[in-house]
Amino acid sequence: MTDVLVIGGGPAGTPLAMALAQAGRKVTLVEAGPGLGGTCLFEGCIPSKIFRETARRLRELRAADTFGLCLPTQDAKVNWSAVLARKRAILKRRGETALARAGRIPTLEVVKGHARLLSPRSAEITLPNDQRRTISFEQAVIATGSIPVRPPIPGVDHARVLDSEDILDIGEIPQRLVIIGGGPIGVELGQVFRTLGSEVALLEAAPHILGPVDPELAQILTDRMQNDGIEITTGCQIKAIVNTGGDGVYVEYTASARGERRRFADTVLLVTGRRPRVEGLGLEQTGVTHGPHGIEVNAELETAEPGIFAVGDVIGQPMFAHWATAQGLALARHMRGLPSQFPLAEHNSAVIFSEPEIGMAGLTEAQARERGIAVGIARYDFAQDARAQIAAHDDGMLKIVYDKESRRVVGVHALVEGAGEIMGEAALLVRAGIPIEALANSIHPHPTLTESFGLAARMALASDPNH
Amino acid sequence: MTDVLVIGGGPAGTPLAMALAQAGRKVTLVEAGPGLGGTCLFEGCIPSKIFRETARRLRELRAADTFGLCLPTQDAKVNWSAVLARKRAILKRRGETALARAGRIPTLEVVKGHARLLSPRSAEITLPNDQRRTISFEQAVIATGSIPVRPPIPGVDHARVLDSEDILDIGEIPQRLVIIGGGPIGVELGQVFRTLGSEVALLEAAPHILGPVDPELAQILTDRMQNDGIEITTGCQIKAIVNTGGDGVYVEYTASARGERRRFADTVLLVTGRRPRVEGLGLEQTGVTHGPHGIEVNAELETAEPGIFAVGDVIGQPMFAHWATAQGLALARHMRGLPSQFPLAEHNSAVIFSEPEIGMAGLTEAQARERGIAVGIARYDFAQDARAQIAAHDDGMLKIVYDKESRRVVGVHALVEGAGEIMGEAALLVRAGIPIEALANSIHPHPTLTESFGLAARMALASDPNH
Repeated sequence: MTDVLVIGGGPAGTPLAMALAQAGRKVTLVEAGPGLGGTCLFEGCIPSKIFRETARRLRELRAADTFGLCLPTQDAKVNWSAVLARKRAILKRRGETALARAGRIPTLEVVKGHARLLSPRSAEITLPNDQRRTISFEQAVIATGSIPVRPPIPGVDHARVLDSEDILDIGEIPQRLVIIGGGPIGVELGQVFRTLGSEVALLEAAPHILGPVDPELAQILTDRMQNDGIEITTGCQIKAIVNTGGDGVYVEYTASARGERRRFADTVLLVTGRRPRVEGLGLEQTGVTHGPHGIEVNAELETAEPGIFAVGDVIGQPMFAHWATAQGLALARHMRGLPSQFPLAEHNSAVIFSEPEIGMAGLTEAQARERGIAVGIARYDFAQDARAQIAAHDDGMLKIVYDKESRRVVGVHALVEGAGEIMGEAALLVRAGIPIEALANSIHPHPTLTESFGLAARMALASDPNH
Repeated sequence: MTDVLVIGGGPAGTPLAMALAQAGRKVTLVEAGPGLGGTCLFEGCIPSKIFRETARRLRELRAADTFGLCLPTQDAKVNWSAVLARKRAILKRRGETALARAGRIPTLEVVKGHARLLSPRSAEITLPNDQRRTISFEQAVIATGSIPVRPPIPGVDHARVLDSEDILDIGEIPQRLVIIGGGPIGVELGQVFRTLGSEVALLEAAPHILGPVDPELAQILTDRMQNDGIEITTGCQIKAIVNTGGDGVYVEYTASARGERRRFADTVLLVTGRRPRVEGLGLEQTGVTHGPHGIEVNAELETAEPGIFAVGDVIGQPMFAHWATAQGLALARHMRGLPSQFPLAEHNSAVIFSEPEIGMAGLTEAQARERGIAVGIARYDFAQDARAQIAAHDDGMLKIVYDKESRRVVGVHALVEGAGEIMGEAALLVRAGIPIEALANSIHPHPTLTESFGLAARMALASDPNH
C-alpha cells in the first residue's frame, strides 16, 4: 500500500514524486529505464546536446584564426568513441545523482520495473528479474512520456533507419545522412553531423522547416544551413526506403513540382514527431481514456478515472522537459491540496540548439495577432551588438512582441548564438507581463547579449506614438 | 546657440544627446576622442573583452580533447598583431556606427573637440585644427567620464608602467607581468595574459581581491586563479617602482608579516581605480562644484549651477557603462519634463569577465543584512547542472538573496562560465521585486544555465518553513 504511485521517472514524474514525498506522502516511483531522468536525460535533450557541444567546439576551433590563434591545422579529428564515452559518463552521473537525491527522502521508494494498472487502485510491477509485485494506492500519476513515431513508410524498419533515440548510440559518424523531418531535432542533429563531416540532406513535408518558429528567424536559419552545405527539400512526400543491397538505402520521395526522386543514404534519421506512450499500462482496467493526443485530462490533470492523474508528454503537446517539470510541480501542489497554478502555453519557453540557437518565449507575432492583440514589435539586429561582435556571432536578430494597449511583453524570439541563456529573462518577461517601458528602463550589464532586450525596447519606444 | 550642450560622447552622453534630439531639442554633442563610445568602447570594456575572447578561445582549444576533438598540438600560437588589428576593426566599426546613427537625427550636431565652459550659458570648443568656436546654450550636461588614477608611487611614470588604457595598445604579450590592484580589471586582464602565456603576479592592498564581490564567489575565483599559476599577494603596500637598468623594473612592496619584497616585471599594470575627469572644463567659470567623488549633483543630477547637469563616471561610483547609460536616459526624460526614474544602486547589475564569469545584481548577502532584511539564501551548485556539465564548465555557484518577509528577490550572485548572459534575468528579478515563489514557478528552458534560478528557488522553498 502506498499513498501515491507514480509511473515514470522522467522530468514530470521525478520532481512530482520528490515534492509529494518531501511533503510527507508515501510515494512509490516506478521507472523502467536505466535511472531517473526519462527520455530527456537518456534519449533526448542531454545526449543530443553533448554531441552538439562537440560540434560547436569544432566550429569554434575552425574559426580560431579570426581571434588571432594559429594552429598547424584547424581540422581536428573527431574521436567519436570518446564522444560516446563522454555521453555515457554524463548520463550515468546525472542518473545516479537523481537516484541518490531521491534516496535521501525517507517516504519515497524508487522501483525499477514496468507498472501495469490492475484496477483503479492497484497495479502490478514487473521487476527486471521478471518477478512481479502487486501494489495498491490511493492515487496514481501516469508520467510515461512519449516515444518516436514511425510513420507507415515501406522499408521504415530497415536497420539503417534510426529514430531520434537510436542515433544517440550510433557507432560512427554517418557519411551520407538523410533526415526525414525538419523540426527542431532534425535541424539540430543535421547541423551537428554536417559539422562533424557528414553529407546531410533534410526532407520536410511542409513548405518550410521549423514550422512553429517565427518565419523570419526560421528563414535566417534555413539560409545558414544551406550555406553550410545542408540540402533542404520541402514539400516532400516519402514513398519508400529501399535496400540497395549494398551499404545503404535509397530514400524515395516526391517533391512538389520536381516529381519522383531518390537519395542514397548510409544512415536515415527519422524524426517526424513523438507520440504519447500509453501501451501496456493497463488503462483498460480503469476509466482512464486516451485519444490521438494521449491520455485525456481535465484542467487539474486528472483523468476520467478519479484519483488517477497524468502529466507530461503522455498528455500531448507541448512535449518539452521543462514544461513537463512545471506541470509535475504544479500537480504535486494540487495533490497536496494547495492552490496551484498550472502552466499556461502562452508562458512557455523553448530553445532550439541550432547554430545559431533559437530561443522562444510566449506568443509569436502571428499568434498574438490571432488573439486580437494590437501587436507592437521591438526589433534588434545583433550585427550592431557589442557582445555578438566580440564573439564574431553577429548574424542574428531579436523580436519582442508586445501589446500596444496593455504595454505588456507577450513574446520574445531570438536567433543568435547564446540565445538559450537569454531566454530566462524572456520567460520571466512574458510570465510576469512586464511592460515594454519597464524593460526599456531596466539595467542590463554591458557587454552582454542581454542588453539587446533593453536596446530593442528603447528603439521601439522612440518611434511609438503611444509612448 | 543650441538648446543643450552635451560634453562627452560616451555611454552616458551619447544616448542622452540622441534621446533629447529625437524629441526635437537642438543638441550639440562635443567629444574629444576618436568617435562616439567613450572609455567603454575605446579604452575599456570592449577592447578588454576582445582580448579576453581570444584568451577564452585558447582555453577552450586546449580543452578540445575533453570533447573528443584531437589536434596535432593544442598549443596554438597567438598572433598578437592580429588580435590588435581585430580590436581596431571592431572599435572603428562601432564608433562609425554610432556616429552614423547620430548623424541621422537632424537636430543633433556632433562636434569633435574639447569643450570648456566660459560662463553658465556659454562654452568654447577647441577643434582638432586648434580653431575655436564659441557656443551658447540653454542647458548643459557634463558627461566627461573618468580617467585611471596614478597613485603617487616613486617610479610610477616609468614607461613600463601601464594603466588600464595603455595596456590595450601593448605591442606584445608581456613575459613577466605585475598587476597592482585586484579589482575586476586586474583580475580580468591577469587571467587573459596568464592564458596567453605571461607569468603573472597580482598585488592587492586589501586582505582580499575583488572586495565588493560576495566573499564565497571571490574565494572560488581566487583559488582558480592560483591554480592557474597566478601569484596573488594581498595586504600589499607598494613602495616604489625601480628601474633595473635592463629590460624591466622592480616593483618593491611590503606584504603583511613578510616584510619587504621586490618583483621583476617587464610590464607593470596599474589598475588601482579611476577618478572623475573634471580638469579643463572651465567649471570655475560656473557655480558647478566638485569634490573627491567628482561633480556634485542633486537627485535629479543637476549641479550647483542651475541648468547644468552631470551624469556618468564624472559624478562618481558606480562607474559602469550600463549604469551611465541608464542615468543618461533617465536624465533625458527629466530634461524633457517627463516623469523619470533615476536608477537606484540596489538595482544595478554587473559582470566581471573573469574565467569563470561573475555576475552580480542587487544586494549581496552582507548588504542585505546591513539593511536589516531578514535574509533567505537560495543556493545552487553548478556541479549538478546539465548545461554546465555538457559544457564542462561545472565549477561554479549561484546565490539568490531574498527577503523572507516580503518574499522578494533582492540580489543574485553567480560564478559560472556564462554568468553574464543570465544576469539579464537577475537584474529584472531585482528591479521588479519578483517573489521567490514566482521565480520557483517560472518555466526556464532546458538545458540552459538559466534553469539554475528556478531550481535554486525551489530547493530553498522546500526547506523554508514560511513557504
